[in-house]
Amino acid sequence: MQPIVQKFSVPFQYTVHFTNGIFNLNNPLFSQIFLQDGNNTPRKLFFVVDSGVAAHHPQLVADIEKYVQHYQQVFKLSGKPVIMPGGEACKTDYSLVEQIQQAVNEYGIDRHSYIVGIGGGAILDMVGFAAAVSHRGVRLVRIPTTVLAQNDSGVGVKNSINAFHKKNFLGTFAPPFAVLNDFDFLLTLDDRDWRSGIAEAIKVALIKDIHFWQFIKTHAQALANREMNAMQYLIHRCAQMHLDHIAGGDPFEMGSARPLDFGHWAAHKMEQLTNYQLRHGEAVAIGIALDCAYAYLAGMLTKDELNEIIEVMEEIGFQLFDPVLLQREENAQQVSQLAVIKGLSEFREHLGGRLTITLLERIGKGKEVNQIDSALVEKAVYFLQSHSVNINV
Amino acid sequence: MQPIVQKFSVPFQYTVHFTNGIFNLNNPLFSQIFLQDGNNTPRKLFFVVDSGVAAHHPQLVADIEKYVQHYQQVFKLSGKPVIMPGGEACKTDYSLVEQIQQAVNEYGIDRHSYIVGIGGGAILDMVGFAAAVSHRGVRLVRIPTTVLAQNDSGVGVKNSINAFHKKNFLGTFAPPFAVLNDFDFLLTLDDRDWRSGIAEAIKVALIKDIHFWQFIKTHAQALANREMNAMQYLIHRCAQMHLDHIAGGDPFEMGSARPLDFGHWAAHKMEQLTNYQLRHGEAVAIGIALDCAYAYLAGMLTKDELNEIIEVMEEIGFQLFDPVLLQREENAQQVSQLAVIKGLSEFREHLGGRLTITLLERIGKGKEVNQIDSALVEKAVYFLQSHSVNINV
Repeated sequence: MQPIVQKFSVPFQYTVHFTNGIFNLNNPLFSQIFLQDGNNTPRKLFFVVDSGVAAHHPQLVADIEKYVQHYQQVFKLSGKPVIMPGGEACKTDYSLVEQIQQAVNEYGIDRHSYIVGIGGGAILDMVGFAAAVSHRGVRLVRIPTTVLAQNDSGVGVKNSINAFHKKNFLGTFAPPFAVLNDFDFLLTLDDRDWRSGIAEAIKVALIKDIHFWQFIKTHAQALANREMNAMQYLIHRCAQMHLDHIAGGDPFEMGSARPLDFGHWAAHKMEQLTNYQLRHGEAVAIGIALDCAYAYLAGMLTKDELNEIIEVMEEIGFQLFDPVLLQREENAQQVSQLAVIKGLSEFREHLGGRLTITLLERIGKGKEVNQIDSALVEKAVYFLQSHSVNINV
Repeated sequence: MQPIVQKFSVPFQYTVHFTNGIFNLNNPLFSQIFLQDGNNTPRKLFFVVDSGVAAHHPQLVADIEKYVQHYQQVFKLSGKPVIMPGGEACKTDYSLVEQIQQAVNEYGIDRHSYIVGIGGGAILDMVGFAAAVSHRGVRLVRIPTTVLAQNDSGVGVKNSINAFHKKNFLGTFAPPFAVLNDFDFLLTLDDRDWRSGIAEAIKVALIKDIHFWQFIKTHAQALANREMNAMQYLIHRCAQMHLDHIAGGDPFEMGSARPLDFGHWAAHKMEQLTNYQLRHGEAVAIGIALDCAYAYLAGMLTKDELNEIIEVMEEIGFQLFDPVLLQREENAQQVSQLAVIKGLSEFREHLGGRLTITLLERIGKGKEVNQIDSALVEKAVYFLQSHSVNINV
């Protein structure tokens, strides 16, 4: 009997907005994003708010309630906004996913209703996962509140939670209904969160856009000084590049290449080894420095290029070495090796297929390699260590 | 700042194969489906087998092991094939999902490895869900073993488990890597499972294809007598129509219409009310009869058309009435109503948006309606009841 070949494409579209004062009654943006959704009765909204954001913005829940009341022809609340812990820990606590699904059940939230997540990248990942698997996908609106979430994780198509002590072990690809970046949330970030999201912008600039790199280089001091204009440009440009990459390539990552994971193989492992004491962006900055030092030692980057990259990152305020890089363990052959090296095999395993790592052939141009020399990684670690000793004397 | 509109399409492709003796060493089909996947080393396979299938085919696991050994250049086993309970109950036992994810972790099953599910629609739904959320999607090969799974649920793009006492409350859209329908598995089905899958073929024929309906009508006796040629044609045609519908419309069901759910609003509710004692196809047959009686009472179908539909279904062996249809409960306004009526609101809630139910305007032509008159549903129930009394005296 003839086999049947099934073939189709699924179109996706969503908009990433930039605004201030999103729940200010005079700002209609949040009420307007729903107008084309085909609902002709008020939509049901269920809000999940990052506890860190709620702590810095004690009026937020009241503001949401007033806003929804004001635009009651457009939407209504299904249950009070729920505050949940943010940060990486929320991705390891499966009971939070269950609480959201319980609300979906209790309030009759359907595939034409909305879950609105407000917070950093971690809670948006967790809320997105809960939404994506409920009724095979309740619509998700993301309101990212950190630099990292606004320019990178919050604008993309992935969600995830951690399991078996592995970051992002469970998750799906599920484009959001809309993303609303409100710059006002950046004002209350602590310095570490302000800075850490800049690492993803550095990453895309280094692998793809020398002009963007030059912007970052020129504005390194402004970014360190928390100048908002520089940050807004950086977020918009980084989000644009992130979105272009997704749309232009392999949105649901069915192949092996993941150029946007430049610097990430070591970063994920360092996050885990420090029990997430290193923030994602902080780890990515070190991961970028490590891969650049490696590329220099492998003859791909010049010393001047490596120095330029390191200087700009340090000017912004990144620490480019962490003692965790020196942690050792025995590998399967009972040979002592750096613990971070295991990040390579875990990275390959998460992606599947052949190991594919992006390095730099010059500033602004990534290059995929399929092999990493662990002895050279070790040299790169010592390079960063001795550099850090030198600048800290 | 300018919003960024993100827009892309994700292409999907998979093949549904038809075969016999799938793990016969002389049948290379199963080894060939992997050849274009880009892996250049033996692929990792992890098998999950329906306990009902394993009971009827005690050699199956050994045959799988021999087959994999024989084609060891193509693939290798990651762990022994695992046998899990099939049937609707497996979709309510979350520990089975966790066991599969534990295996994914333990055996290092990645996004370029494969989970192979062998069994009925329920276990394929559950295994598919576990695979879809692991590493954001481990590849899934489905080997459906029932009529229902071979012509309908197993060839499509959905997976699901039950939660909060609601069928398919959790799930995703995740096209399989490949589907292999082995007709030999049908030989060991009990009569109820042989028959029940025919309901989905009747469904697509009635809403879309009068020629297919005429085939079913002409071969009703042959189907009742378990003649394999008639069944093979029925499965191939039904699978083709199901796949065409998915590809031609809204594969991930972002809109409100779900014509393939003809007869299903009542079926899902009856399954739940009988605690899944009614099999899905048996409930769908009753649901179709109910919606056709409703369409007749609403002046959409003629008496002759209704009689023809009922006679063909009865000739195949379907019971078109179940006492559960008479079960009553109080609604939110404390008015007594048929319990099955609540299936309408649960159906709308799962889909979201406006209630959209497919009825028939004639045999071979469905018609969407957005309102159902519950008094007329009650009349349709009594019609089926009295019909069943008449034929059973």
